[in-house]
Amino acid sequence: MNREGILIVVSGPSGAGKGTICKELLNRNKDIKISVSATTRKPREGEIHGVNYYFITKETFEDMINKDEFLEYAKVYDNFYGTPKKEVFETLSKGKDVLLEIDIQGAMSVKKEYPNGVFIFILPPSLDELKNRIVKRGTETEEDIKKRFGSALSEIEKIDNYDYFIINEDVEKSAYELQNIINAEKNRVLRYKDNIIKMFKEEL
Amino acid sequence: MNREGILIVVSGPSGAGKGTICKELLNRNKDIKISVSATTRKPREGEIHGVNYYFITKETFEDMINKDEFLEYAKVYDNFYGTPKKEVFETLSKGKDVLLEIDIQGAMSVKKEYPNGVFIFILPPSLDELKNRIVKRGTETEEDIKKRFGSALSEIEKIDNYDYFIINEDVEKSAYELQNIINAEKNRVLRYKDNIIKMFKEEL
Repeated sequence: MNREGILIVVSGPSGAGKGTICKELLNRNKDIKISVSATTRKPREGEIHGVNYYFITKETFEDMINKDEFLEYAKVYDNFYGTPKKEVFETLSKGKDVLLEIDIQGAMSVKKEYPNGVFIFILPPSLDELKNRIVKRGTETEEDIKKRFGSALSEIEKIDNYDYFIINEDVEKSAYELQNIINAEKNRVLRYKDNIIKMFKEEL
Repeated sequence: MNREGILIVVSGPSGAGKGTICKELLNRNKDIKISVSATTRKPREGEIHGVNYYFITKETFEDMINKDEFLEYAKVYDNFYGTPKKEVFETLSKGKDVLLEIDIQGAMSVKKEYPNGVFIFILPPSLDELKNRIVKRGTETEEDIKKRFGSALSEIEKIDNYDYFIINEDVEKSAYELQNIINAEKNRVLRYKDNIIKMFKEEL
């Protein structure tokens, strides 16, 4: 039976582990397409253009904003991040599921534009553990760490706008729960519009 | 984290196989409690009072109706069927999940009373296969079979009132999908009310 692909939006505070969970999910499930964001921030070590992000200049980014080419975009700590519309919508219309890993601000913008997405909030086991993870990552200045941790609780308070949550104690378990949510969403009546009734009527 | 149990309502046209799927699910998952319905119909071979149904008299049933003791009840082909409220709500309030296997009329009544339930529609692979299954069961008169099959399509048209559907081609696969849906529902934000935010605030 035909259906549009599912837009899977994985979000949560910085340090909750959304990136690691998504990577683990994509390892297990080759059918899910990842949406690559555009950003003006500098690549971290090992990050590849077109794989982790499209690393573009501020000028190019602003040009795309003016042409309304983003599903969402936001300025976070002096850098722009955005999701190009075209790729995402084309993939969904082919019936393929798309994974979007973005911050909370971005997820809320996507929800306005595409409420049929599945919005999943990744939580740390505790605020203390969240702080540990941000510090351990070691990619950010002390001031950045303070900024990120300071906004964590107010970010968690946005959880009511999400459909699902996952408490990320263990990456394997979290990826399993994420896969499970995606599977269940494939059984949702509303994703098939009138196709179910049509299928049975055609038999008569 | 505390949550109320999930009321899992499995429904669908007669012959779609909801009974077999529920039995298979309960074999795999001992944590789910089954809600036992009351009925005035005669037991089929092998059916046990208190396990498959509470087999009660019409007088007792009407007395329970008058005392508002049913979550739902309906008269189907000359017999009464009903779900006693007390047991269901007590189990849910203990945080245990309850499985309810009922016909479509009944499911719609439950939805009015308890919209937080998870409503799952079991579909046959085709109308032709549905007819085969009803005939094969051999527990019903030819007239009953005609009645049941005749109402199948109009029953399927009620599917828009349900959250999920499962096309029952294979019992094992269907029970797996059902378990999957239940697992995913445990990750739903709305099932935890404010408990998630509370958990993190308590840390501060």
